[in-house]
Order: sequence, then C-alpha cells, then structure tokens
Amino acid sequence: MQNFTTMDKTALKEEYSKLSAVYADYKAQGLSLNMARGKPGAAQLSISNDMLNVLTDEADFVTPDCPDVRNYGNLDGIDCAKQLFADILGVDKKNVFVGGNSSLNMMFDTIACMMEQGNSGEKPWNQQGKIKFLCPAPGYDRHFGVTQYFGIESVVVPMTENGPDMDIVEQLVSSDPTIKGIWCVPKYSNPQGITYSDETVRRFAALKPAAKDFRIMWDNAYIIHDINGTPDTLLNIFDEVKKTGNEDMVLEFCSTSKITFPGAGVAAMAASENNLALVKKRYNFQTIGYDKLNMLRHVMYFKNLDGVLAHMQKHRAVLEPRFNSVLETLENELGGLGIACWTKPNGGYFVSLDVMEGCAKRVVALCKEAGVILTGAGATYPYGNDPKDSNIRLAPTYPPVEELKKAMAILCICVKMAAIEQLTK
Amino acid sequence: MQNFTTMDKTALKEEYSKLSAVYADYKAQGLSLNMARGKPGAAQLSISNDMLNVLTDEADFVTPDCPDVRNYGNLDGIDCAKQLFADILGVDKKNVFVGGNSSLNMMFDTIACMMEQGNSGEKPWNQQGKIKFLCPAPGYDRHFGVTQYFGIESVVVPMTENGPDMDIVEQLVSSDPTIKGIWCVPKYSNPQGITYSDETVRRFAALKPAAKDFRIMWDNAYIIHDINGTPDTLLNIFDEVKKTGNEDMVLEFCSTSKITFPGAGVAAMAASENNLALVKKRYNFQTIGYDKLNMLRHVMYFKNLDGVLAHMQKHRAVLEPRFNSVLETLENELGGLGIACWTKPNGGYFVSLDVMEGCAKRVVALCKEAGVILTGAGATYPYGNDPKDSNIRLAPTYPPVEELKKAMAILCICVKMAAIEQLTK
Repeated sequence: MQNFTTMDKTALKEEYSKLSAVYADYKAQGLSLNMARGKPGAAQLSISNDMLNVLTDEADFVTPDCPDVRNYGNLDGIDCAKQLFADILGVDKKNVFVGGNSSLNMMFDTIACMMEQGNSGEKPWNQQGKIKFLCPAPGYDRHFGVTQYFGIESVVVPMTENGPDMDIVEQLVSSDPTIKGIWCVPKYSNPQGITYSDETVRRFAALKPAAKDFRIMWDNAYIIHDINGTPDTLLNIFDEVKKTGNEDMVLEFCSTSKITFPGAGVAAMAASENNLALVKKRYNFQTIGYDKLNMLRHVMYFKNLDGVLAHMQKHRAVLEPRFNSVLETLENELGGLGIACWTKPNGGYFVSLDVMEGCAKRVVALCKEAGVILTGAGATYPYGNDPKDSNIRLAPTYPPVEELKKAMAILCICVKMAAIEQLTK
Repeated sequence: MQNFTTMDKTALKEEYSKLSAVYADYKAQGLSLNMARGKPGAAQLSISNDMLNVLTDEADFVTPDCPDVRNYGNLDGIDCAKQLFADILGVDKKNVFVGGNSSLNMMFDTIACMMEQGNSGEKPWNQQGKIKFLCPAPGYDRHFGVTQYFGIESVVVPMTENGPDMDIVEQLVSSDPTIKGIWCVPKYSNPQGITYSDETVRRFAALKPAAKDFRIMWDNAYIIHDINGTPDTLLNIFDEVKKTGNEDMVLEFCSTSKITFPGAGVAAMAASENNLALVKKRYNFQTIGYDKLNMLRHVMYFKNLDGVLAHMQKHRAVLEPRFNSVLETLENELGGLGIACWTKPNGGYFVSLDVMEGCAKRVVALCKEAGVILTGAGATYPYGNDPKDSNIRLAPTYPPVEELKKAMAILCICVKMAAIEQLTK
C-alpha cells in the first residue's frame, strides 16, 4: 500500500470509506476486547501453580536466621529470600530488603519516607517547599502518580533509544536543587521496551546533583523478562555507583509479580546501607514484617537463580508468539504508510506505538467504540498529557490470542482512519 | 506468707537473703527465657498448617467478582474474603476493605492518609500545626509509636476496669479541637485484657468531638480470642454509631495474625463508605492490590465464621493451661503479699502485672540478669514513660511451657526482691 502522506485527498477519502465499512462490520459484532494493562495471561499464571503447594514439611519453617517463618519477625525478610533477590539483582544480600507483594507499594513507602524523614542530612522533602521529580516519558503512569500524590511536580524528560536524554538529565539535575529524583525503568522500559545503554547507566552513576538528597528510583521491573532469543543486557548500576562514590543515590526495586503471580508475588529493594537504615526507621513503625511464608514458598520453588531463569523461559514461550503476532500485524497493516512507528522490544510487557501527531486520542476513541479497550491516550505522560497526542501503549500479554489478533486488526483500521481524518482536514 | 508491707525491716532483710540465694542459683544456670512479645507458640502455629495446601484446583481461582485471583486487581480485596471479615466483625461487607498481611500496617497507612489528605472537609492533619492523640494506658506500644512517628503528641488517658476513663475522654475530646483521635483495643485490651463495658462503647459512640476530623482507631485485634469458658462480650460499635449518626468517627481493624499465621495472615478494616472512599484515594496510588491468593486460602480453609470460631477453640486449648499456670504462680507466690496485683483476662495475649510503685524497672532488670526477658518496663505507656514505674506486661503464649514456668518462678522472686529493696530503703 502507498504511503498515506503522499496520496491526494480523493484517494484518501476513497480509502477511508473502505475502512469505514470494515470498521462498521467489527462494531456490529459488539466485541469486548482489552489490550489496556500489562497483566500476564491465563497461561502464564498457570506456569507457577506448583509453587502454591511446596510448603508441606514443618522442618522447612526453620531457617538459619529465623526460628519459625510462620511467626512474627524479620522486618527486612528472611535470609534465603534476600539471597535469591541479591542473585537476581547482582548485589550483595546485605543490601537487600525483601518486602510485601508489591514493588509499587515499596516505592510509594520509600517516597513517603523521604517526604517525612528526609535523607543525607537534608530536611524532609515535605518541609522543603516546592520540589520536583524527573519523569522520562513516555513512561509508567503509576510512577508519576506516586510522586504527584505527594504533591511533587513532574518534569518531563524525553526518552531516546538509549534511555532518558542524558544531556537534559545532567543539565537539570546539576543545576536545580529542587529536583529530588528521577523515575527509571532501565530495562525493557514501560512502554517502549528500551534498555538503557551502558553510556546512559554510566552517566546516571556519575551524576553530580545540586540536591544532596537526590535519589534515582531504579525500577528494574523487567530485569529478567526477555521475550525472544536476542535479549538486551543492562549494566549493573550498583557496580557503577561504587566507582563514582554515589552509592546512596540509587534505590533499586523489583518483584516476582510477573515471574510468579501478580499481586501474590514478593517485592524487594536494593540500596546502600545508609538508605536501608533510613527506610527501616519508617518500616519499624509501619509493620512487624512481611509475609515470610510467601518468601519461603518462592525460594523453595525456585531454589536459586538458575531456577528462576529456567522459569522465565516458560513465560517467554507464551509471550514470544504474542509479541510476534502484534509486530507482524503492525508491519503488514501499517508498514510503509508513513502514519505510525512502533518499538520492537526484546523483553518487557509492551509495544509502544506512535501514531500521527494529534491522532492518539482519536485512535483510542475509535477503538473503544468498536469494543477494543486500549490504555488511555496520554497515560504514558505525567498528568496524562502527551504533548504530541501520538503515543499509545499496547499490552499484548493478557487477552487470549484470537482476541488479541482481532483487537490488533481493529486497532490498525482505527490508526488509518484517524490518520486520514487528519490528512484530509 | 505474711503481707510484706506489715513486716519489719529485719524480717524483710532475712527474707531478702533467702530470695537472693534462690535467685543466685537461677542466675548460675545461664538461662535464656523470653516472655516479652505477644507471639503465638509453636503448637499454635501448627494448628493452621493445613491452610497452606488448600489451593490445588484452578477452578477455585475464579470468583464471582474476580476473573482470576492470581492476577492483578481488586484493590479492596475479593468478595468472599470481605464477607468472612464482615461476619467476624458484625458489619456489612460493603464496609470492609481487605488488605495485606498486617493490621498495624493498615493503621499506619490510615494515619498517613489523614496526615496527607485530611477528612470531613478539614485540612490534612500535617497542615494543622500541633495535633494530639489520646492514648489509653497501659496500652499497645506500637499504636503509640505510629502516631508519634508522624509527630502527633500522645496524651495519656488512664484505663479503668471498664475501658478508658470516659469522663476524661469526653472532657478532652469535646473541648480540644487539636485532639484528632484515640487508640483503642476494645476487647481483651493489650496488656490488661480488659473488655470495654457496654456503657463505655455507647459513650464512645456518642462522643461530640470539638474536631470534626476526630477518629477512633478501634483495633479489635482480639475480637474472637477467648482463652477460657467465660468469654467477654463487646458491644458492636458500628451498631451504636448508627444510632448516634457518628458513622464516620470509627475505623475498625482486625487480622488473622493470631488466628492463622502472624505475618502471613490477612488484615482488614471496617469503616463508613465516606472513610473507605477516603483511604482508597491513597491506596489507589500506593498499590494495585493485596495478596488475593492468601485471602482465598483463608476463605477456602475456614469456609465461614463457624469455621473460624471452631479454629479458635484449638488456640484456646493451647492457651488456657498457659494462662492458668501464670495466674496460679502469681497467686501462689505473690498472693496476699501486698506488693503486686494483676489482671485475670478471659482472652487476648497478656497478663498485666502491677508491682509496687517505683519497682517495675528494677524487676525487669533483675529478671534480665537472671536470663528472663520481659517487655521493657514503661513500654505500655506513651514515650515509654510509666509515671508510677509499676506496670509489667507478661506474654505467656510464646515460650515452651517448662520455660514459662521457670520464667514465672524467677519473675516472682524478682518482684519480691524489688519490693523488699523498696520497703527497706
């Protein structure tokens, strides 16, 4: 098919009426398809079912650091769980805090801690007047939501194919002491699936912030979540900050939500001893400890990092054909039309689609009318405001494959229709 | 034995040297006994082991309100878990929020929510300058810790045998708009095991606070935790606040920490629709949801309230002889001496011992020297400050029975020694 941007209006209008007819047929089917959230699909959930029944022997409840994991205690988790996360993250287990079922909740608690206690000898953030956080965008709406909940202003930093635009990050962070941190998904970023380059990681580790209490929120949510045979590699930021003496600048998070069960997994953070001492001050008032039986369940099921990595291959087997299907449909239906581009990630949970400027909201609305729910246009930007109104996050993991195919077909029609509406204005 | 307070100093000193000899013998044994924390003992933990393996059938993961409990979603819990807690608490399930593994954490989050968002149209608590919380004492150290963490001043209210002194509560609450709430353990209070009388509950429900945003933190931690055949009954405060139009004034909490597993149980809160809407505003930024598999595990294991109550009888069977042993030792060793009095609770986790004024710290220190760890003297008062230095919290549940007996024997010797030191000063 010809590039839309070089077609004349008559030809475009003809094409539009053909598309409208197909669109009307889909609409008449009264479909209800959902490509909105990054939720694992049913087949992925069943992969981990056997984990639910590994706790059978009383003897297992006694660990070297805990007289009985069924009882109270061990605020920062049991040792064997710390070791498993240390191996996943490539850090020492003394730098690991194993928490509850949600890394989002740990990040929220960490920001709350900085708000109320402060760090690095500075006043608590909530006593410093107006403060700001850098938000690489497109990015993860729930990250931006956490800092916004606490009244922290979001400052957009553009993403490049190597991660956040580091020229801008360095300039802002080194000059503005009201900038207190940055949200990062360094591997298979949400939604673009971009992995930060070695240079980007090194430049992060070498930042010289104007604010002594500046913190990098390093959400390594997709650290081992490859979806094909050419996985990305990410430099270990804790190795790098050791070289630059910036150990206190980075707080890393991860969870097993997309390894075992979303909502019934285990979350962990890695941080310097100073930072762990700081957050433990708060956790010590907040709780007696997290669910150690669920930690033990994970450790007994996986045994070690190799067990986790073998498990991730089972997820890949489910996800790879889905992502391939999405990418093929995009290529077949939109390739060469000059009206859209998209990412081809090697891991993570999303494909990021950029439609013509000013068309994203219209595409999402057209899809909705035809029974296809997408993540809201703008959701990948702070305050839901995509300045170009062009980014749409596609989540291929949740719907059954046949629904996914149908949803993608409808999406591509809507992308074309919205583009022609724009071009024939 | 004779009442110590009527003995002359010579007789007391004779007694002291006998006690010292026994004490020295114990000390020489190099014991390590712990009666400090309200932790269930090993036999209690094993009661619930079968709950760990009830999730075996994929069909169970689908509930009427949730397409798959293994996946994300259901911020306030699954319906069947809400129903179980509604039945335990005697409220409608629409008033229930089922959360994570810790009711302490829910209370912490709730106070944080009030600090940051405010309620009843008032400014957030953290924008109102100095505010205060009423702390009935002796009480639960971790309650006082939560409000103190947020910089809220603790105001002590004395406990009576019917609950907090309501004359004082009413006077303070109705006259001082900086008093924003009160901590309550209304049934089998920590540490005294007192259950609030019907009149006390009704007076709570009828409070007319000077602060519109005043909240009662009703921690019903021991709601079904009877330890003998003559259990207390507590009036349902939500029934009472309906009559007084004070539905927004009460936030109730409970958990299965001492029903199934401490740290691997499920916590819940009950509140008015206004209050639930308020806390959900925060939770919606904080997490995607709590561990629904653990909720389901509890529901499938217990089936209903009758199942829970039958389960509690198994705990009672373990606990009743322990509490009897503690009370018998106190009666046999300290009865009639005029130097101590103690509570005889029908439920909960503690016996509250009041030694002679000015002696609690000395008793705890003497015990420690002989290898018996007690809850720190003063811990049951805000800021760790027991004005009479007389209250000691005894936790009979955790140590093996033989250790408990030995610890109690040593404790009684120390109580006598400290009293004689005081009387012969």
